[in-house]
Amino acid sequence: MEPSLKKTAVKLNELTATEIVAAINAGDTTCEAVARACLEQIQIREPKVQAWQYLDREQVLGQAIALDKSGRRGPLIGVPFGIKDIIDTADMPTEYGSPIYKGNQPKNEAACVALTRKAGGLLMGKTVTTEFANRHPGKTRNPFDPARTPGGSSSGSAAAVGDHMVPLAIGTQTTGSTIRPASFCGAFGYRPTWGDLRCSGVREAAGSLDTLGLLARSVADIALYRDVLIGVEPQPVKEHTGALKVGFCRTHVWPQVEPTTQKLLEEAAQNLSRAGVEVRDVELPANFEQLMDAHLAISSFEFSRNFTYEIQHHWEMISTTLRENRLKSGLACSFERYQEAREIAVECRRAFTSVVADYDVLLTASATGEAPVGLNATGNANNCLIWTTLHVPSVTMPLFRGPNNLPVGAQIVGKPGQDRALFAAAQRIYETLA
Amino acid sequence: MEPSLKKTAVKLNELTATEIVAAINAGDTTCEAVARACLEQIQIREPKVQAWQYLDREQVLGQAIALDKSGRRGPLIGVPFGIKDIIDTADMPTEYGSPIYKGNQPKNEAACVALTRKAGGLLMGKTVTTEFANRHPGKTRNPFDPARTPGGSSSGSAAAVGDHMVPLAIGTQTTGSTIRPASFCGAFGYRPTWGDLRCSGVREAAGSLDTLGLLARSVADIALYRDVLIGVEPQPVKEHTGALKVGFCRTHVWPQVEPTTQKLLEEAAQNLSRAGVEVRDVELPANFEQLMDAHLAISSFEFSRNFTYEIQHHWEMISTTLRENRLKSGLACSFERYQEAREIAVECRRAFTSVVADYDVLLTASATGEAPVGLNATGNANNCLIWTTLHVPSVTMPLFRGPNNLPVGAQIVGKPGQDRALFAAAQRIYETLA
Repeated sequence: MEPSLKKTAVKLNELTATEIVAAINAGDTTCEAVARACLEQIQIREPKVQAWQYLDREQVLGQAIALDKSGRRGPLIGVPFGIKDIIDTADMPTEYGSPIYKGNQPKNEAACVALTRKAGGLLMGKTVTTEFANRHPGKTRNPFDPARTPGGSSSGSAAAVGDHMVPLAIGTQTTGSTIRPASFCGAFGYRPTWGDLRCSGVREAAGSLDTLGLLARSVADIALYRDVLIGVEPQPVKEHTGALKVGFCRTHVWPQVEPTTQKLLEEAAQNLSRAGVEVRDVELPANFEQLMDAHLAISSFEFSRNFTYEIQHHWEMISTTLRENRLKSGLACSFERYQEAREIAVECRRAFTSVVADYDVLLTASATGEAPVGLNATGNANNCLIWTTLHVPSVTMPLFRGPNNLPVGAQIVGKPGQDRALFAAAQRIYETLA
Repeated sequence: MEPSLKKTAVKLNELTATEIVAAINAGDTTCEAVARACLEQIQIREPKVQAWQYLDREQVLGQAIALDKSGRRGPLIGVPFGIKDIIDTADMPTEYGSPIYKGNQPKNEAACVALTRKAGGLLMGKTVTTEFANRHPGKTRNPFDPARTPGGSSSGSAAAVGDHMVPLAIGTQTTGSTIRPASFCGAFGYRPTWGDLRCSGVREAAGSLDTLGLLARSVADIALYRDVLIGVEPQPVKEHTGALKVGFCRTHVWPQVEPTTQKLLEEAAQNLSRAGVEVRDVELPANFEQLMDAHLAISSFEFSRNFTYEIQHHWEMISTTLRENRLKSGLACSFERYQEAREIAVECRRAFTSVVADYDVLLTASATGEAPVGLNATGNANNCLIWTTLHVPSVTMPLFRGPNNLPVGAQIVGKPGQDRALFAAAQRIYETLA
């Protein structure tokens, strides 16, 4: 079966994954046409944005044409996607953002990549990551302003989705590595409940905090992609029924949020209220402030053990940023301090159940504001760190523009294990505010 | 500094790691001499035992001589160790027990391998694993009777340690993959508190259950090796002070334990009691029986997602055992059932706190009895499954001989996060009973 390639006015690279699948299933377009549209956008924009660590145009087109010829169907049929380059791929190099692994070609393909391809997805290439998904940045620039950071560590995944190069990409999050760059690049971002999505084949940063992260251009796409990665039949986002109860949670890092962003969030809370949503202020218990230090101890301790081989054999090829921060503090951290930090996290996870008991979701900042100027750092991750350490799911949605007309996200935080309910609430909030 | 190689009557390959380090530090032996003794034992025994997937004699000797020349010291200086072949090594192939990965050479080295080498350990080679650490057996035979299974999935690691080829080896455990083969092969085995030892570079089976597992020939060696893998200065095993309170826990799978093994454990409990240990019977709450099905759901669901690439691309190279059991049940398991199973595990972990509150440790069976005859299966893992799913630490100690004069272990189970206290209690129990 050779689907006919209809002429269409819409730009195929600007469609969401859901729209692409519908168009291909209806015979309105082909995998090849979608791939060509995305490749064209990349050709135009990549010299400025630098989102891709590896992309082979012929390889992509060959796989797109093969998908069309096969007549295959699937929940992500023909949807181009990008994969953060700390995730193993069997037919593309995987360099972990480090010169140590230049040209490294794994024999295995990470579970998340294989599951996306099983669903019909078309792997476009590997997106730029900071060094080992830590802080030392790669070459990527913010698609809205090349003088600014795209955020990190999932820099290329966020920039590629925000810049309409691909509708979907996978990143990871150990602190704020998906939500923050998504906010900076005008994308939807999702950090799942810890433990739900398999990380096999993903280079571990700090396993007790790491999750995959998804970048997309709608809540519906995030929900669709999550089901694919869980390995189940996709279900559409349910409509949130009844009253929606939102806790407006400024957190103890609110003073770090820029006044313009504070104002955007305050207004959003008021607008939700006016639209009939029950919005009330929520304060986190005082001991949640300990999560900052606890996260530092846990992530640094684990990271510094995980990279023993690189430390022992390739010290001089590790960035000063990584050596002087994460590795130094990790190697200096005792096991007792690490265990204590994990206990604090467990306590706070337990206490969080009461904090959110009366709400469907929390509304909070995704980042301090617009992407900061400069390419040497990826921005403040403290607005994500709390939720990451609590193991709870969250999404960021590109609801605002800051003083420089750059994207600013709003973060919606859900209850652990209730990611579907989070999507339903986020969708309602987006429709109310957008 | 070139340490002198003294003539010695003891067989160097029969020394524990602690003894090897002391001998090398005292100048009584060299890394090379220890390596040669282990290689000699392997040369004699390997044709029968088949513990090694990869071993290059010249590579080992070269590294041993280099260690001697370097004058390096370290908590595991000169200690030969084996690594289960689902764990990545940068200078030896890693085949995951599957023909799919024949000759696969990772560029990275797993955290546990690099940490052992950092401590001065000498990597002898890769030990045989069952296919992807699941049930389909490799070539290894039980060192005490070649007609019997060594157990699995850490078959080669257990056989190599039990047969005095190396004093230390790393395995993994997702059900009973360290404790059971250790019991069958006359070795000490240790499954740590889930989450304590980094699994980066270890091929994931079911991440929410997987841990490393250690094989050794004394409790002191296990404690030493654990500290090396945590990445801290080793501390000797503390003496258990005051009364020792042991709960004798037959569990609901007691009827599966052979009568001769039941008798050995009953007598051990009585002997401990006679020696002044406070021993009382402990029953697990009735709902702990649900852990069997919960473990099956969790492990199968995760495993079947983790191996999507192999399922999609190499189905015909996967064993019938794996396809018809783990993969079939995993692919048929809904996400709701998986989540429910995880909830049951969380509930039981919570309840376990009360179960052990009045005890230092529990005494229970490591396996149903001696290693069964036959090489097509690796034995019943139900005596380990409970503790694995509870995320608690345990050790097995080679305390008994069964009706065929083959090794039978006793399993000592500790409280989560209290692995050092477990070692102290296990040491006391061993000294009392051995």
